[in-house]
Amino acid sequence: MSEYIEHDIGGVSVGMVEKKYFTFAEPPNPMILESSACLGPITIAYETLGTLNKEKSNVILILHALSGDSHVAGYYSEADPKPGWWDIMVGPGKGIDTEKYFVICSNIIGSCMGSTGPSSINPASGNPYGFDFPVVTIGDMVKAQKALLDHLGINKILSVIGGSIGGMQVLEWVVRYPDMVVSAIPLATTTRHSALAIAFNEVARQAIMADPNWNKGKYYGSSKPNLGLALARMVGHVTYLSDEAMRRKFGRRLQNKSDFSFNFDADFQVESYLRYQGQKFVERFDANSFLYITKAADYFDLRRQHGNGSEAEAFAKAQARFLVISFTSDWLYPTYQSRAMVKAMKKNNLDVSFCEIEAEWGHDAFLLPNQRLSALIRGFLGRNFDELN
Amino acid sequence: MSEYIEHDIGGVSVGMVEKKYFTFAEPPNPMILESSACLGPITIAYETLGTLNKEKSNVILILHALSGDSHVAGYYSEADPKPGWWDIMVGPGKGIDTEKYFVICSNIIGSCMGSTGPSSINPASGNPYGFDFPVVTIGDMVKAQKALLDHLGINKILSVIGGSIGGMQVLEWVVRYPDMVVSAIPLATTTRHSALAIAFNEVARQAIMADPNWNKGKYYGSSKPNLGLALARMVGHVTYLSDEAMRRKFGRRLQNKSDFSFNFDADFQVESYLRYQGQKFVERFDANSFLYITKAADYFDLRRQHGNGSEAEAFAKAQARFLVISFTSDWLYPTYQSRAMVKAMKKNNLDVSFCEIEAEWGHDAFLLPNQRLSALIRGFLGRNFDELN
Repeated sequence: MSEYIEHDIGGVSVGMVEKKYFTFAEPPNPMILESSACLGPITIAYETLGTLNKEKSNVILILHALSGDSHVAGYYSEADPKPGWWDIMVGPGKGIDTEKYFVICSNIIGSCMGSTGPSSINPASGNPYGFDFPVVTIGDMVKAQKALLDHLGINKILSVIGGSIGGMQVLEWVVRYPDMVVSAIPLATTTRHSALAIAFNEVARQAIMADPNWNKGKYYGSSKPNLGLALARMVGHVTYLSDEAMRRKFGRRLQNKSDFSFNFDADFQVESYLRYQGQKFVERFDANSFLYITKAADYFDLRRQHGNGSEAEAFAKAQARFLVISFTSDWLYPTYQSRAMVKAMKKNNLDVSFCEIEAEWGHDAFLLPNQRLSALIRGFLGRNFDELN
Repeated sequence: MSEYIEHDIGGVSVGMVEKKYFTFAEPPNPMILESSACLGPITIAYETLGTLNKEKSNVILILHALSGDSHVAGYYSEADPKPGWWDIMVGPGKGIDTEKYFVICSNIIGSCMGSTGPSSINPASGNPYGFDFPVVTIGDMVKAQKALLDHLGINKILSVIGGSIGGMQVLEWVVRYPDMVVSAIPLATTTRHSALAIAFNEVARQAIMADPNWNKGKYYGSSKPNLGLALARMVGHVTYLSDEAMRRKFGRRLQNKSDFSFNFDADFQVESYLRYQGQKFVERFDANSFLYITKAADYFDLRRQHGNGSEAEAFAKAQARFLVISFTSDWLYPTYQSRAMVKAMKKNNLDVSFCEIEAEWGHDAFLLPNQRLSALIRGFLGRNFDELN
């Protein structure tokens, strides 16, 4: 999500990668969702990097956040201007070393990045699903990823890794398929959204649904709810940054001006930044997907779904070793939430390492270059790989 | 701003009050605004409570926040269901005792609560100003209030008091008219908005301006941009509360349901609360006023306007005694901003008391019943009154 910092990524990229597709849950055998609704056929877009070893013991599953996709690292072509979203972390010699590990990154259902979502064609009508798409949960997303892993013939995951909503998928993986997951790295995430996080998502959703172009989700082929989606993204960007990050990055600096405009132009750099982020986002993301994925994140509640209301009980089935990471300036999923998660894991005698990383960039910190983060992940993966092999 | 907590206000209300109007800056002598634009005639709505003493030494000027008005306490009629917005603080025997003090509460220009603002008739066109209304600043608001005080024959203010944007007006008063102000109580406020505060305001403004009904500010007499204004208010409400306040008030509690709806209804109480607040707000507030007042708050920068960039220099002319109050859970104007203000005041050898009040209700805490707050204000006013008299 952090397109906003143009950083020298350094190091070597993994090179060329290819987006692949796997389709399953073909009628008459659709997937039964948590809501009891049926969905199928389901396509999942995914990418792989590195080579699966003979023992199939070097699999890393990376799961993306709200607006991410399967394109975790590398380039699609020589002409591709930008690498995947976590190229700083994934590649030869990097924190997640593609010379050693076989990396799979799966897009989530509900998204608009190649997997089945509200913009996909509904076989029942021949038109895009729109708001006829069923509400999917983090559990449903993970269930679909499990089908992908089965398809790839993989039954052991050395480590499942993800930040934010990707981290929720990590937590869902470890409790839903405990036998498969050797280790897990939930980053900048939570076992359940706070009221504050739900509030921000709700404001963003209302912004989309208030746009007349949204038209109850039926806008494919006509004008899109770009103003609403841009607003939703602006709300999101405020939550990804922190008070401190904003002060350092923008302060009260004016945009190309020595004085106030005394009109409603973007006087301050922070205003112009938010408008730009909003406008850029509508070019690449679908408004309905934004609605569905944020709803899935709000619904996610590990203790409700797996623990009868108890955070400790939620992790009762988990077997994985954990590296839990939070960031000091993340106010969307503050460290106290990671600490509660770690406590619950420990109550189940799980092997847990926890690290709160000093970072000034807010929630998005997990996507930014950070030597300490790379070193932590590299070390944790190496230890788990050695013990498994 | 805190309609959300139905509290037993206790004590005795001030009784019946009346909204009054003062009009000045009649053409050809309009008021010259900070932007150099001219505005006039200007009407200010105000209310008074208590009795001005012979010495005119018991004047308290109360200044309201974004969506407030001149109706600070008491009722307009026997049938009036609710008293003014700070009735818990202002009345006989209350923190600001109307049996002792003469209280004036002035509405701000730019507002829609009786004073001249974008919804007022533009004499040049005979139609509402709309977006032809000039951008006004906190300085302009205070300059207009000064005209009101002159009109009332008052040249000494025992104390000027206000929270949030009302607190900005307090700070502007003490540096703009230092000879007039004996003491000042800026509550839950800042000498300038952080990038975060500007960001929230900008998202709220964009929400209004994205509503097709907004129509570049020309909507009077036709459909109003209610969806946009409701969204803006929702953004505001997220900032008025705190993470902790939201957790206590809403947590993840569901709205009238035992399970998720698996659609886009308001599943969580916090969603339903925000939608309700948004819908209620549009009945009483004007979207253009929201734009103008938030812009004024974003522009407000005491050190830029009065201190050549230095916070200490900004207070160089001030003579008032100060009681500065912040609230622990206020993340819109966090305590560190009040501390910086206090430090700057002390550098000028001003008489300053500072208190950070433990409160879990976020920015809105200054509007809620708080024994400590009432006692602090009562004591501070009493001491200043005794020394003046």
